[in-house]
Amino acid sequence: MKALSKRVLRFSDRIPELRIGSTSSFGELLQTIADRGRELVASARSGVDRSMADLCEDLLSSRGEASGVGLAAEVLERYRSLDKSTRLHFLSMLLTQFDIDRTALDCAFAAYQQNPSGRTAAALHRALEPRRHELIRRLNMAPGGTLELVRMREFVLEAARLDAELAAVDADFQALFTTWFNRGFLALRRIDWSTPANILEKIIRYEAVHVISSWQDLRSRLMPADRLCFAFFHPQMDDEPLIFVEVALTRETPANIAFLLADGREVVSREQATTAVFYSISNCQEGLRGISFGNFLIKQVVQELKKEIPSLVTFLTLSPVPGFAKWVDSERRKPFSVVFGAEEKAVLNSLGDDAWPAKAAKSEGLRKVLAPAAAEYFLRAKTEDGKPVDPVARFHLGNGARLERINWLADVSNRGLAQGLGLMVNYLYDPEDIEKNHEDFVNKGAVATASGVRRSLRARRRNIRDVVEAVEPGIKRD
Amino acid sequence: MKALSKRVLRFSDRIPELRIGSTSSFGELLQTIADRGRELVASARSGVDRSMADLCEDLLSSRGEASGVGLAAEVLERYRSLDKSTRLHFLSMLLTQFDIDRTALDCAFAAYQQNPSGRTAAALHRALEPRRHELIRRLNMAPGGTLELVRMREFVLEAARLDAELAAVDADFQALFTTWFNRGFLALRRIDWSTPANILEKIIRYEAVHVISSWQDLRSRLMPADRLCFAFFHPQMDDEPLIFVEVALTRETPANIAFLLADGREVVSREQATTAVFYSISNCQEGLRGISFGNFLIKQVVQELKKEIPSLVTFLTLSPVPGFAKWVDSERRKPFSVVFGAEEKAVLNSLGDDAWPAKAAKSEGLRKVLAPAAAEYFLRAKTEDGKPVDPVARFHLGNGARLERINWLADVSNRGLAQGLGLMVNYLYDPEDIEKNHEDFVNKGAVATASGVRRSLRARRRNIRDVVEAVEPGIKRD
Amino acid sequence: MKALSKRVLRFSDRIPELRIGSTSSFGELLQTIADRGRELVASARSGVDRSMADLCEDLLSSRGEASGVGLAAEVLERYRSLDKSTRLHFLSMLLTQFDIDRTALDCAFAAYQQNPSGRTAAALHRALEPRRHELIRRLNMAPGGTLELVRMREFVLEAARLDAELAAVDADFQALFTTWFNRGFLALRRIDWSTPANILEKIIRYEAVHVISSWQDLRSRLMPADRLCFAFFHPQMDDEPLIFVEVALTRETPANIAFLLADGREVVSREQATTAVFYSISNCQEGLRGISFGNFLIKQVVQELKKEIPSLVTFLTLSPVPGFAKWVDSERRKPFSVVFGAEEKAVLNSLGDDAWPAKAAKSEGLRKVLAPAAAEYFLRAKTEDGKPVDPVARFHLGNGARLERINWLADVSNRGLAQGLGLMVNYLYDPEDIEKNHEDFVNKGAVATASGVRRSLRARRRNIRDVVEAVEPGIKRD
Amino acid sequence: MKALSKRVLRFSDRIPELRIGSTSSFGELLQTIADRGRELVASARSGVDRSMADLCEDLLSSRGEASGVGLAAEVLERYRSLDKSTRLHFLSMLLTQFDIDRTALDCAFAAYQQNPSGRTAAALHRALEPRRHELIRRLNMAPGGTLELVRMREFVLEAARLDAELAAVDADFQALFTTWFNRGFLALRRIDWSTPANILEKIIRYEAVHVISSWQDLRSRLMPADRLCFAFFHPQMDDEPLIFVEVALTRETPANIAFLLADGREVVSREQATTAVFYSISNCQEGLRGISFGNFLIKQVVQELKKEIPSLVTFLTLSPVPGFAKWVDSERRKPFSVVFGAEEKAVLNSLGDDAWPAKAAKSEGLRKVLAPAAAEYFLRAKTEDGKPVDPVARFHLGNGARLERINWLADVSNRGLAQGLGLMVNYLYDPEDIEKNHEDFVNKGAVATASGVRRSLRARRRNIRDVVEAVEPGIKRD
Repeated sequence: MKALSKRVLRFSDRIPELRIGSTSSFGELLQTIADRGRELVASARSGVDRSMADLCEDLLSSRGEASGVGLAAEVLERYRSLDKSTRLHFLSMLLTQFDIDRTALDCAFAAYQQNPSGRTAAALHRALEPRRHELIRRLNMAPGGTLELVRMREFVLEAARLDAELAAVDADFQALFTTWFNRGFLALRRIDWSTPANILEKIIRYEAVHVISSWQDLRSRLMPADRLCFAFFHPQMDDEPLIFVEVALTRETPANIAFLLADGREVVSREQATTAVFYSISNCQEGLRGISFGNFLIKQVVQELKKEIPSLVTFLTLSPVPGFAKWVDSERRKPFSVVFGAEEKAVLNSLGDDAWPAKAAKSEGLRKVLAPAAAEYFLRAKTEDGKPVDPVARFHLGNGARLERINWLADVSNRGLAQGLGLMVNYLYDPEDIEKNHEDFVNKGAVATASGVRRSLRARRRNIRDVVEAVEPGIKRD
Repeated sequence: MKALSKRVLRFSDRIPELRIGSTSSFGELLQTIADRGRELVASARSGVDRSMADLCEDLLSSRGEASGVGLAAEVLERYRSLDKSTRLHFLSMLLTQFDIDRTALDCAFAAYQQNPSGRTAAALHRALEPRRHELIRRLNMAPGGTLELVRMREFVLEAARLDAELAAVDADFQALFTTWFNRGFLALRRIDWSTPANILEKIIRYEAVHVISSWQDLRSRLMPADRLCFAFFHPQMDDEPLIFVEVALTRETPANIAFLLADGREVVSREQATTAVFYSISNCQEGLRGISFGNFLIKQVVQELKKEIPSLVTFLTLSPVPGFAKWVDSERRKPFSVVFGAEEKAVLNSLGDDAWPAKAAKSEGLRKVLAPAAAEYFLRAKTEDGKPVDPVARFHLGNGARLERINWLADVSNRGLAQGLGLMVNYLYDPEDIEKNHEDFVNKGAVATASGVRRSLRARRRNIRDVVEAVEPGIKRD
Repeated sequence: MKALSKRVLRFSDRIPELRIGSTSSFGELLQTIADRGRELVASARSGVDRSMADLCEDLLSSRGEASGVGLAAEVLERYRSLDKSTRLHFLSMLLTQFDIDRTALDCAFAAYQQNPSGRTAAALHRALEPRRHELIRRLNMAPGGTLELVRMREFVLEAARLDAELAAVDADFQALFTTWFNRGFLALRRIDWSTPANILEKIIRYEAVHVISSWQDLRSRLMPADRLCFAFFHPQMDDEPLIFVEVALTRETPANIAFLLADGREVVSREQATTAVFYSISNCQEGLRGISFGNFLIKQVVQELKKEIPSLVTFLTLSPVPGFAKWVDSERRKPFSVVFGAEEKAVLNSLGDDAWPAKAAKSEGLRKVLAPAAAEYFLRAKTEDGKPVDPVARFHLGNGARLERINWLADVSNRGLAQGLGLMVNYLYDPEDIEKNHEDFVNKGAVATASGVRRSLRARRRNIRDVVEAVEPGIKRD
Repeated sequence: MKALSKRVLRFSDRIPELRIGSTSSFGELLQTIADRGRELVASARSGVDRSMADLCEDLLSSRGEASGVGLAAEVLERYRSLDKSTRLHFLSMLLTQFDIDRTALDCAFAAYQQNPSGRTAAALHRALEPRRHELIRRLNMAPGGTLELVRMREFVLEAARLDAELAAVDADFQALFTTWFNRGFLALRRIDWSTPANILEKIIRYEAVHVISSWQDLRSRLMPADRLCFAFFHPQMDDEPLIFVEVALTRETPANIAFLLADGREVVSREQATTAVFYSISNCQEGLRGISFGNFLIKQVVQELKKEIPSLVTFLTLSPVPGFAKWVDSERRKPFSVVFGAEEKAVLNSLGDDAWPAKAAKSEGLRKVLAPAAAEYFLRAKTEDGKPVDPVARFHLGNGARLERINWLADVSNRGLAQGLGLMVNYLYDPEDIEKNHEDFVNKGAVATASGVRRSLRARRRNIRDVVEAVEPGIKRD
């Protein structure tokens, strides 16, 4: 059943607004409790300086509410003031001192072995949970705790690159975050030029794909009638976008990014627009890596746009191909590549000349080699578990999108050339097929592909030289 | 730092309102996915009728998003249509078929025994989680799933009274609900005569302490300047209050409920009020039993009231004593009660006359016996784990309140007499002591008690007959 | 340009919400100023009791802000406490004492005659404004003044029925209200079962067409999927609806009201609905008579419904015919009516039998006479200024609606029979023609009429007996 | 009665939010009507190009709603596209062609002379209203008309400086704006770093007192805990602030502006702050000149701040003295000034040296002359109608503020020196006295003055040389 337009707001619409009131009030309440808790804790200690480890042990064993919140706040405050190396010590402590309680485990283990009932199994289950799990949960009671813990995990991820053991600590963070950042709690918001400045500041900071250079540049991405932006937020981190997507409305499938962002371009009115292009998707919180939102974000935005701009019939991305250059390079180095023969490898030497995109002959030579290779890259190059090697492809195909078109010389920025050899890809989000594609991809590893791309691959199989006109129909082969 | 008045709303205040937009939109999105998911599931099955067990297994093994949401929706829809006995079968199935996977457990167990590392411990931990745990989590993906699961647990609790085994199923529900109904997500809302009718309908229905007989009666609890009501809500169950408290503003500590709710009473203006009386607290969701909100509700309401009505200096309840009659009865039946001597037991026979409150002599006789016994009841009668036997006392004392005054003949309704022999109690919430009291109660079992009550107990210890004037100062003893 | 769905609310959407904050705060500020103003006024007077006339003079001559607001508040408060006869004195005072200042007028008049320049004309213009005009404007400065003045005008209208002179007072009220209730300030709100109870209470009270008998009855007009209700509000009278319309969604043009409101009727889902029926429009504020909102209300509701329920193709009313019985009666009494011949007049005698609708023969006889007369009534019976005599017809046709169908025995309630002889009419709001019809009606007095009705009129012109089958096609004539 | 904190929002709080929904929707409706109206108008004209005058005549005589809105929109659209000189023609046309209808006036005049009744007086009153009055009212029906008309009046004011006749046109604008911008409709909003960027953009643009140089500079006026900003908005011009005030929280009365805005200054926490300094008040809409908001803005902000930051006890401005230099200059040129004797005039020659503030001797010399003259300027220098000549003084004293302190060398910016010879003044807003001061100022012309300033004036009267230590206590005289 379709709801009546929110433009005629119902009284019931106003309910949620109350949340903030109470959240903020709740924040104050927590702060009050935390303050009093710290007093209690302080007076109990009477001057003895306790270590972080002691504080964490106190927090784990505290039964009172106030002292709990107070201890959590103190631990997080102290943590904030630590330098990097001391923070590493703190993580080590989480890893070892707050791991599974061995004594309790042995005990539960023995009990279970003796009598493997539901009760002893449940006890064993509890005993196997690392103590840091509960510790993190309790730290979250501190005012503003959630954001602090997201920042802490950011450091855990960084540290785990040096010390693989810390992956165990990360696992606990990730398990808890998965619950806390449940998709049902996420709120979609429109970002535009009437968005609060403190949020916009962060959009500028977090844009990861096509840098926003100034407030003026930001304005040009939000103000024109053919530009839109949407973000997900979480109720406990109200001013922090989690992920956002920038959208351009056009009348055709765009083949390169410079054209899309060009200064003097003609603005398309909403009535004329037929195509919504998702040209930039940025995750904002490194500490939430692995907690996926992008999938739902795109689907929800597609749904909103369809409803509000009925002239829109096509929803697609203009996406980078971040792994292509690396893959080409590795294929090229193989003595016996199934992708490149000797002749092609020779052509690839042109890549050594940074200015190749501007040189017609080199560029054309490379196109003949790389365009068909790209189809190969997307459709045949797989990771160990059978997914496409390209991370952006994995994301969109996993969402149910279709590999629609591969665009040659579409991003000639330094990064565009270094990572994707100038390629960009359109992934098509067809609301009719999105779920089917997703299911097929997840269950069978099938990649939905437009016939044009598919043909280019078949062509390549037949004759590696014949591929060009398939990738770019209408181009005659020489 | 104190926030600027919300009466001058900041632009930033408006952020939360957006939640609903997106939540509702998200709800629609989920519905769309669920619908499409069911189509996929249906077409995959091609007509074969699958049992609930099959559906649950499918849901647990599904990897696709749409089919997952679709399956969850279908399971819940089918469950709704079941009759009681079939629902019991469903619960049995959760208990047995979706218990711990024994094979996997044995395997993990063996691996751990062979090499008790972090990795094998983590694997064993996972293996010990009953499969229904994940199943419930996935059922929550269905649109409106949370409310459905709360209703389901309501039935689990009912069923577990007949079949104690089901406590294991309940444990999984409770563990998940504890996370989902995290206090940080609760929203405090004022309930008044301008509250939407669909919410007010539920306030009428859920009032558990002093029945609301009509819309007119409800109006008399919400409209007058000296009546207030507050409730907690959860963002995923937007129209369902979780718990609410009714407040009366007075100029003194009220000694009985009839006076407080009397029709013709003079309304106290907010400026004149000195005392806020919490005279009714009702939990609304039986399915959330054991997930405690009342504690934070009262504290937050105290904080709000203090800020907004500066003339308020006293915050207390007028509470029933639901376990008193039963306790008196059991003491009375004991051959050697430390509470009642033979003489007193004789007096208690007056209780057999239902009209005793209206008969001066009987009533006075009973008062002399029961008033001191009440102090005994609150301060000495403990459960096995050292808490007061009275559940309402446990709740308020656990929150940090103080046992302030015991009121004789304070509730002479049928229920009031049957459960509490007419007694009512004022528990005092003093913001200064609330955290201290709570800590002492939780950690040492100490019950904060007003000197009046304490004295009456000491008096009783000295001479069981001397107690009367202590409980009700100014009353001469005969 | 179409706005993006409000379901994804923009940050900018939140701006208006701030109004209330500030309005309410502004209200408090006004109250503070009014209080202090009254103190100042009181101390200045030092005990002398001033008459209402004195207070009004003071208000008109006051230059200070606080004393102005204070005086305005005092005048309105005193007015509220007056009984009817003293209120009449107050109105007389407005009429005479606060009429045009004759001395100033003579002066301005002389100056203008001597030298008729722009300046003297402007001065004369000012001098011709009755002093009560400014007085009313200043009374509006009191907190809550607008609503008080609306109530005051309600009494002016009542009083003017007895004393025609008071029309001059009313003219000043109406002129000011026209500005204050400017359509740009009106807010359309959806009324449903989640609307605050204090608003719903007023919907029950103000329903003027088909009485709402209880909260349960109200629920049945708001809750079902095929029932909707919309109202206009004004920012300075926040809890007072100005006008509301009740809508039923159906699959066909309804021919009678009982069927539409029937208890056991099958609820039509929104997807199936093709027709929106405006079956009740009620003005709420008698004091705003002559300030027209209904026109914009219907148009805006049509626009909202079209957008939100795309399956709707027909928008029409099911309206009473309040002037029909009276008109028939007056025609019948004319010695030479162009509408009724002697034979028809005889048939009309059946109307003397209150039970005629239940008696087939009488009913059928009346139908043959009254059905064609109804077409005559709507299309030929005009007021002096050339508008239809039926007030409801004037309203809808003036809005641009088309006279679509006349329904026989459509409202057999007492009121329906007494005023409309059981007739009801469908007025069609076709968004394509609405403006054209409105212009034609206003400028040329043309009544847009469905061909069926028009044919019945032509038929009647040819042969007054031939009309029946035209009004109700398919009915054979005998 | 004090309202319950908005932090626990009531359901009723949400009502106003609905306004925007409907306003925006109403805007769309107006647009639809305007579009259709223009079609009707266009088709009626069948290709004849009508002049602006014709369009305005059509608008005045149109009776249809759509054609009215359509014509209004077309007139405003055409007006927007005119160049300055053609706009002047348009204003001339308003002045002459749309002045009072002379024929109708003569007629009404004659009728009134013949029989001076209420009816003929009312008719004469109507006849004396210039036709442009109704024309402007009807232009306001166009979508966005209000803002257009505000811009139009901006031009009227500019043009009236060249052509005094246009004051008559301006009078009609001002009369209508006074009604439309009724204070009851104004909404106070907090402006902070979470305010929408499109609003902040305008704050940057409209700041009239101390220029905001960049987004960074703006941030430094909004973000720190000791900085606040408030603005008034009007519901029909939602994104356009009307007036705003910037506030600094301090611990003492600031004596100069550079110190207040200094980059490295220590931020005062809200708890420590005792003083709120209104250091910049900017009117945003030149077209609303003469429609006063500042008065209510400051009072309302004082009220909000008092409530929210209880530690605040002093509310005052740090204001420029824009008329001082001019006044000194004119006094100095008088052959016989009561302010400056020959000796002082000689000292004033130092002003010719632009660098005098940096030169101790010159500066000290000037101080001795100018400081006492300043007291004279504020307390004795009056306009013809007995108000202070300084416009800023008139504003604040008229609001009920007290002249608190005159600060020497308080603003040494170019503008500060050129207009105020470096002086700045603190006006004190004492909530206790504000209304009394206002009444006394308005009714008796009395200027509330701190004893320090008053003493300096008395001293000056006694001996013009004795004044220094009174103005700056503690300074010894030489």
